[in-house]
Amino acid sequence: MRFASYRQNGKQGLAVAVGDAWHGLTEADPAFPGTLQALIETGGEALAKAGNALSSAPAVDIDAVELLPPLSHPEKIVCVGLNYVDHSAESGFKQPDYPTIFGRFNSSLIAHGAPILRPSFSEQLDYEGELVAVIGKAGRDIAEADALAHVSGYSIFNDASIRDYQFKAPQWTPGKNFDDTGAFGPVFVTADELPPGCEGLRLQTRLNGAVVQEASISDMVFSVARLVSILSGFMTLKPGDVIVTGTPSGVGLARKPPLWMRDGDTVEVEIEKIGILSNPVRDRATAKAALVA
Amino acid sequence: MRFASYRQNGKQGLAVAVGDAWHGLTEADPAFPGTLQALIETGGEALAKAGNALSSAPAVDIDAVELLPPLSHPEKIVCVGLNYVDHSAESGFKQPDYPTIFGRFNSSLIAHGAPILRPSFSEQLDYEGELVAVIGKAGRDIAEADALAHVSGYSIFNDASIRDYQFKAPQWTPGKNFDDTGAFGPVFVTADELPPGCEGLRLQTRLNGAVVQEASISDMVFSVARLVSILSGFMTLKPGDVIVTGTPSGVGLARKPPLWMRDGDTVEVEIEKIGILSNPVRDRATAKAALVA
Repeated sequence: MRFASYRQNGKQGLAVAVGDAWHGLTEADPAFPGTLQALIETGGEALAKAGNALSSAPAVDIDAVELLPPLSHPEKIVCVGLNYVDHSAESGFKQPDYPTIFGRFNSSLIAHGAPILRPSFSEQLDYEGELVAVIGKAGRDIAEADALAHVSGYSIFNDASIRDYQFKAPQWTPGKNFDDTGAFGPVFVTADELPPGCEGLRLQTRLNGAVVQEASISDMVFSVARLVSILSGFMTLKPGDVIVTGTPSGVGLARKPPLWMRDGDTVEVEIEKIGILSNPVRDRATAKAALVA
Repeated sequence: MRFASYRQNGKQGLAVAVGDAWHGLTEADPAFPGTLQALIETGGEALAKAGNALSSAPAVDIDAVELLPPLSHPEKIVCVGLNYVDHSAESGFKQPDYPTIFGRFNSSLIAHGAPILRPSFSEQLDYEGELVAVIGKAGRDIAEADALAHVSGYSIFNDASIRDYQFKAPQWTPGKNFDDTGAFGPVFVTADELPPGCEGLRLQTRLNGAVVQEASISDMVFSVARLVSILSGFMTLKPGDVIVTGTPSGVGLARKPPLWMRDGDTVEVEIEKIGILSNPVRDRATAKAALVA
């Protein structure tokens, strides 16, 4: 099933795809089954039951409502760096034999369609198209062979990065946590609709229509199953935890000259069978002035 | 005011200190004012009002109940590395001129008194005594001069680290996020009871009674006010966000030979006027077996 989290008339809603149409309810309706995050956290058959119920709910024009990140307040947003050999090389890092893990805070999340904001004091706003895996079943010390049974479904992320702030100190956190840089969506697709671990699916990032990143999910150094197993080797994974699995080569930082995103740009990340995550790019100063006006 | 979060008969409670005594209520009582996290998130006078109301609640024997981390589910746990010059030097890092920031996930938090667990596959369990600042008022782009008005209060952290996992890849996250390694407590002290930014307070870490770290909070490279200002330069800080401000020199990793924490040890972090955070150290395998038995 394909789910979209949205807001309509100030209320959170959840829609499910039925063919090319979407059907959904908001929390204003007594039959609202809960947010995607709550349903995933409940576990078991809650999500499938909600999807079945929503399929006979009123039609929703998904282009006319405000989309939200599929999950707005994950307890963990675990990001993986250096997970494609070509990207590690272009970034000047030796390929590590253990995943490179950093965290994003919820405060950086935005939805499909929302502007990615460039701060006034940095030019170095870069794109990173990535596959997202969402945990559906809790676990610790999960064997790689069992790992995909712990994944509820998949989505897309643009791990937009402020490169000079990423490298001001030995840890990357600031450059990865500017408000309005973590684009997540447009939708959440349950694992049963996709190849195991999304192996073989094409990922493509486009800046103003030009292809800037292209890879197969099979090119990841650490597969989704491997990541789930390794992460659960040190911490308990819980339903609703989000794993952002890393970006392939082609980032703006590695180009000569560097290619930075600028006010007026449109950036899209597409993963086959999941969808297209599209975001305009704006200067924060301009965007703030527009809000005040 | 001094607050303690606790659990009694399976219910969350909140207690306030009245002189040397503690008075509190659990959520089983209709007059329960809410968790410390909820009160801080509510903002305004909510916390002070709750403290006043709790001061006439029944006495609580704080040594007989199970303490909880002051806040169990902060939206952000922002950790600062390399924030004392001597510790940066002993760790082999050039002192950065911008804070070194990494994240902890809630899943790593434990309370005062709970065991810090060593995984079976690493000997390198190290202590790091640190001051915690908790945000009380939201903000972005906060000037350093205004920053302390955004801090609700302070606590203590033992940022226990699995050193070999910290350095397996360029980012430290795994070694900083093992379950049962982020000790937080024992209590939360409102900012009005302490010197501004906790400047001048002594921090001491003791392993089995022997002093292993000793410093003044004034030795921090980036003060609490400076950290709040810098962090808010890239992300919105919200009430309940936790800033773990870094550790002074003396960690086990830097000793020759290294000093690792082992099953049966007791580790304490004391900060003057705040309290003593004490935790036993256990092997995870042993602790798990004991739970099953």
